[in-house]
This record gives sequence, structure tokens and C-alpha cells, in this order.
Amino acid sequence: MDENLVNNLVSVKGITCWGAHTGVKTKRRDLGIIYSEVPARVSGVFTRNRVVAEPIKICRETVKNGKAQCIVINSGNANACTGEQGRQGAEAMISAAADELRIDRSLVQIASTGIIGRRFPTEKVVEGIRANMSKLSNRQMAGSLCANAILTTDTFSKEGHNSFEVGGKEVNMAGIAKGSGMIHPNMGTMLSFIVCDIDIDHELLDRTFKAIVNDSFNMITVDGDTSTNDEVLILCNGMAGNPKITSEEDEGFERFKEQLRGLCQHLAKLIVSDGEGATKMIEYKVSHAQDKDDARRVVHTVSNSSLVKTAVYGQDPNWGRIIAAAGRAGAELEPEKVDLFIGSDREMLQVLKEGRPTDQDLDEIARLFKDPHVRIHIDLNLGNAVAIGWGADLTEEYVRFNSEYTT
Amino acid sequence: MDENLVNNLVSVKGITCWGAHTGVKTKRRDLGIIYSEVPARVSGVFTRNRVVAEPIKICRETVKNGKAQCIVINSGNANACTGEQGRQGAEAMISAAADELRIDRSLVQIASTGIIGRRFPTEKVVEGIRANMSKLSNRQMAGSLCANAILTTDTFSKEGHNSFEVGGKEVNMAGIAKGSGMIHPNMGTMLSFIVCDIDIDHELLDRTFKAIVNDSFNMITVDGDTSTNDEVLILCNGMAGNPKITSEEDEGFERFKEQLRGLCQHLAKLIVSDGEGATKMIEYKVSHAQDKDDARRVVHTVSNSSLVKTAVYGQDPNWGRIIAAAGRAGAELEPEKVDLFIGSDREMLQVLKEGRPTDQDLDEIARLFKDPHVRIHIDLNLGNAVAIGWGADLTEEYVRFNSEYTT
Repeated sequence: MDENLVNNLVSVKGITCWGAHTGVKTKRRDLGIIYSEVPARVSGVFTRNRVVAEPIKICRETVKNGKAQCIVINSGNANACTGEQGRQGAEAMISAAADELRIDRSLVQIASTGIIGRRFPTEKVVEGIRANMSKLSNRQMAGSLCANAILTTDTFSKEGHNSFEVGGKEVNMAGIAKGSGMIHPNMGTMLSFIVCDIDIDHELLDRTFKAIVNDSFNMITVDGDTSTNDEVLILCNGMAGNPKITSEEDEGFERFKEQLRGLCQHLAKLIVSDGEGATKMIEYKVSHAQDKDDARRVVHTVSNSSLVKTAVYGQDPNWGRIIAAAGRAGAELEPEKVDLFIGSDREMLQVLKEGRPTDQDLDEIARLFKDPHVRIHIDLNLGNAVAIGWGADLTEEYVRFNSEYTT
Repeated sequence: MDENLVNNLVSVKGITCWGAHTGVKTKRRDLGIIYSEVPARVSGVFTRNRVVAEPIKICRETVKNGKAQCIVINSGNANACTGEQGRQGAEAMISAAADELRIDRSLVQIASTGIIGRRFPTEKVVEGIRANMSKLSNRQMAGSLCANAILTTDTFSKEGHNSFEVGGKEVNMAGIAKGSGMIHPNMGTMLSFIVCDIDIDHELLDRTFKAIVNDSFNMITVDGDTSTNDEVLILCNGMAGNPKITSEEDEGFERFKEQLRGLCQHLAKLIVSDGEGATKMIEYKVSHAQDKDDARRVVHTVSNSSLVKTAVYGQDPNWGRIIAAAGRAGAELEPEKVDLFIGSDREMLQVLKEGRPTDQDLDEIARLFKDPHVRIHIDLNLGNAVAIGWGADLTEEYVRFNSEYTT
């Protein structure tokens, strides 16, 4: 791997990839494949939407086996609201991959993203899978092509990598993601696939991964809509050769957890910063909430408020909108205890102290709002729970993008 | 009242009004007063936001007395996040009105709308109340001035009136409202005040009014934000002289209920159609839900979806967004049972039947979407509950309006 100047998926031991064009999209790549030399331990988090795409219906069951060796992702068609024809298409994707790779069908995970409610182009996707398995490669370019192939309305590829030591062995971890946002009649989806060569117990991996997804991918919002296709998977193939981690007390577990959290938050923030029409990324922190659920609830309500999002876009230090959104979140909140700080990476200024306005000059906050990163911190001063989330602003460009008539 | 060519608040027996300029706003009217010759039975619904304005804190308590004779509304300052100074200002408004009218303080209801977190201009408002009580009038112009004085970012006054017979007596009912939407650093608020000369038992009125508010004002959305100042009041002064209605079986009760529902929905829809930047009003109907809460939940989630709102704005029959929003509402929903109809007042077309796309030509729907009224009907085919709601579309103009930097 000496030729690799940039680390990505293929920097992880035993991982090969490819990204190809099958013809579902007119011109761009529309098929991504990630393969592990040996079966890996797998964990997955899937959309909670009641309307789910066909690949999700299958994979949220097979992921329970705990093992996977290949992930196949097609873009351009979401395979949602496609009924029996779509179900057969999803099964055919799995069969084609398992057949070409000579592995058990239960080791193949799949994902789809793109147009909803259109016949699934099974033939093209299956032909693409059969034609491209032989191209799987550990060259850096292959990782990049794969990252590129899963995109829809994204304006850039989303990748991340890190490495650390466990028991004297180098562990590599890498991931790719695609953003959330929709264009007619496409349905954008949040997808992320993470691979790591660490050796870790499946149950421990599963529990840790789900908690971290909750603190990263589940704490971002572009427009508050949840897709029918959201899917986040991690594969750990153990090829780093570290002493297997079997409990939270084992050497290296905390390092793995922190690195994984870092990677997931990195990918989640990339998704936000590529939100449709977004000009700013906003970090929301809620502290001293009664409990974690309350803290999350306030982050979600404030970060999804159109009024807060337009205010940030307009560089308008309109803190009344933030407090009003917090107040309707359904969380325990005593107005006369709330502190509010707003600002940027450079500086935070207090505008509300125990529910009453400070003398803070609002023009100074407006100046801080010129930064592409805006920070909002609501201190409820009630309990000990904290939550942090990330969101985009709301711009005319978002509306233009999502209202364009394209059939 | 022969001079009245248009019926409004003053068409109700015993009701006089006024609308004045006190100087809180630079030029426009900013004080509305509604007075009943005799104490009236009162019922009120107030914001559920945890952060509430000072007048709300007082009135949601005094309304429990069941009697009111006067409503005083100031616009231009919300008297929210104003602390002790604001509380005293609200009390001073009540005292000034009670004093001038020589009625008990407990008979005065107040409301505020405008800038949040700015010192309450008690002197101007109190002076205005003292100077204008003598102008209370039953001339049609007085009703119009009052309707005008409570507006903030609204582009037109919102009024409604109807009359019907109970026990051979003519009953008049009228209301005014102001819209919801915010401009910096104002916080728009939904206010509505309804007066009626019917004689009705207080407990029955209270129960009926709250149920109707739930089916009207609580089923609309412009941007999903709930203000700190939302307030809806009804005064029934009994001056029509009808045989008092004391139970749901009494003659006239059903008529009263239907007329009140009609008036509230009329005012609610006016608010939506004057939503900031809105070009279309969308009616959402959810039928055959498992229960009423589920039906409401789906209406709320779909009507607040930025993706649905931009699609309607763009005249884009993008039904995948509607189904995806319904799916994440948290309501009982079986994808393979859902029917979806979209269209206009002219015609509804089916795009989804039992969870699968119909062959409906989407261009035809796009044509129906040119209407200023768009209708969306989601049939869950599960239970017997129905909910109907109204929302605005999401436009570049909304974003411009709400992001404009105005400090």
C-alpha cells in the first residue's frame, strides 16, 4: 500500500473496494462494493421510518447473524415502494454478489439510495455486480471510487480514516458516507459504511456502535426528514491481529471507542456541511438537562426550527427564536434558570442569564455569525445530562433546490 | 347598527371595540380593546411552550374564574423574557383597564405580541389604555380598527362573523385573529379573540371551545414553531337572550358548535394563507388512523416537512416525500395498506394504492398543483380516526423574510 498517499477504506487490512457505473444513473458511478478478505463481525443501525426500502427489510434481519463479508450499494434507485418486484431485485443483488464471491448469501449486506417508487432496475444492477467483482482492489483509487459511487445529490465524497495501536498492533479504521437531502423524485438518504481491522467481540461491538451512532449520525439534521433507506454499518474483520477485545475493561477498548466516535462524528458533520443549499454548520449543545432524552429533544427541536435556521443564515442574533424552540421541545425546562450562549468557534457570548437578557451587544454576535461554524449553547441548569448535535442553516438555495420541477 | 355594511366584532350584541396607536410601534396601530357591556363567560387556550410571556402567565390563571368583560391586546412588544419588569407591566395594563372601565381586575384579559426580550414599554401602553377607553364604539369601523391593531407581520386583517337562531333569537358570533410567523427580533404569535352573544353554561362552553381549538387553530402550521404568546379566547355574554344552553342535548347547542367550528377554522385558514412568503394553502387529511392522536401526528409531521412544503411550492407531485414523512410520524402505519391521493379543490388523483404506486400520470397532478389550494389525503386503512389540518408551502421568500438582518 506504499502508493497510497491518502488513507481510506483500503487502508484497513483485508479490505478491497470498487466503484462502478452500471447504467442506473446516466453518467455517474452508481455501484459501490466493499469486501473483506475474511468474514467480519458486523453491526448495523437502520432507519426508524415505518416505510422502509426493500434492502433494509432484508439486512436488518441478516445483520443479526453477526457476520458479514461484503457490502454492495447501488445509487440511483432507492428500491422503496417497489413491492414484490423490488424485493426480488434486492434478493437478486445478494445472490449475484454471493455467487461471484463464492461466499454464503448471509454474508452479503446491501443498501440502495435514489429515486423512490420506481421499478427497481434489477438487470442493470445485477449485471454490474457480476461484471465488477473481479475489479475489487486495495489501491487507494478503489476506495475513492467506492466513496464516489454511493453519492446522489452530494457535492463531494465523504471519507475518513484513523489508526491507533492496540496491544502493540496497528489498527486501521475508515469510513465513507453520503448525505441527506432530496431532489425530485429522488429521496436522499444517509448511508455510512465503516470498516476496521480490529479484533473485537461481536456483542461488545454491537452495543458500542449503536451508542456511538446515537451520538453522531442520529444527532444531525439537514431538513428534519428521515429517509426510508437510512443505513449505517460497521465491519470489523480482526485482521490487525490485536489481542481480541472482549470487555470494556480490556486494553484498547476505550481507544477504539473514542476513535470510532471521532470518525462517526467527522462523517456526520461532513454530511451536514454538504446539506442542500447550506452555507453554515451549526453546533448545538444542551447542558444540565434533567436527562439525556430531554437534552436530545431540545437539540433536535432547536436544530430543526426553520426560524432558528433562517436566523443563522441571515447572521441575525435572534435568540428569542432559540428560546422559543427550546420551550416547545417537550423537555423539562424552567425558563427562569436558562442560560443561553451563542457565537462561533472563536468566542461564545452570553445573551440570556437565568431567563433574562444580558446587556450583550447583539452586533457583536452578528459579527461572530459570519463564521461558517456557528455555535449555540443552551444551559438548562436543571440536571447533569448533555447532548450535542449539528445542523445546517436554511437558505433560499435549499428551497430552490427542493422545489425545482424536474419530471 | 344599520350603518354596518360588513359584520364584525361589533355585530355581536353588547360588544364595543377600539384600535389605537400608542407609540410602541412607530406608525401602525398597536393597541386593541374589546369590551362587553356585561360580564361574559370566558374560555381560553394558551401556548404550551415552556417559555411563556407575562400576560399568559396571568391570564391562564384568571381565565379559570370563568368570567371576563374586557380584552386588551398590545402589539409591538411580546412582554416575554422580560422578568419582573414585564410582570409589573402586564399587571399595570390590567389595572389601567379595570380602573378606566370601573370593573374588577379579574374581568380583564390581556395579550401581547411583538419583540421578545425587550423591556416592556409599560408607560406607553398604560397611557394608551387610559386615553382610548372612552373611544370604545359599536360602529363597524371600531371592529376593523381593533382587528388591525393586533397585527404584526400579517399582510391583512383576519375577521369572521356568522349568525344563527337559537330558540327564536338571533345569535351573532364574530372573531379576529393574527398570524404566526416571525421577523427579527419579533416573535410572531397566533392570537384570536372570539365574541358571541349566546347564553351558554360556562363548563359546556369551556369544553366545547377547547375541543374546537384543537381541531382548528391547533391543526395549522406555517413553520412549525410555537410562540411564547399564543392565546385564543372566547367571550359569550348571553345578550342574545336565547334560552340558556346548559347541555349538549339542548336546542341550538349543535348549531352553536358547528358555527363556532366554522368560524375557528375560517380564522385558522386565514392565518395559514397569510403565512410568511406562502404562495399556497395545503389541506392535509389523514383518514382511517388507529386513533385521533395518530391521525393528528401524521398531519403535523407531513405538514411540517420542509421537503413536502418545497415540493408543493415547486408544483412537484413528489409523493415519495409525503409517504416518507408519514412513515416517520411515530403513528401506527402499515406501508402495504396506505393509499395516497393528491390534487386540488377541483380533483383528487390516487398515486399510491395499498402501498404501491398507481399508473397515475404525474404531470396531471402537477397541473392540479397550479391551484392556490392543494389537497393531500393519506388513507392509512387501519382504524376509524380522521384529522384535517392546514399548512403553507415553503418558499425562497420565507427564507428571505426570516433571514433578513434588521437590527
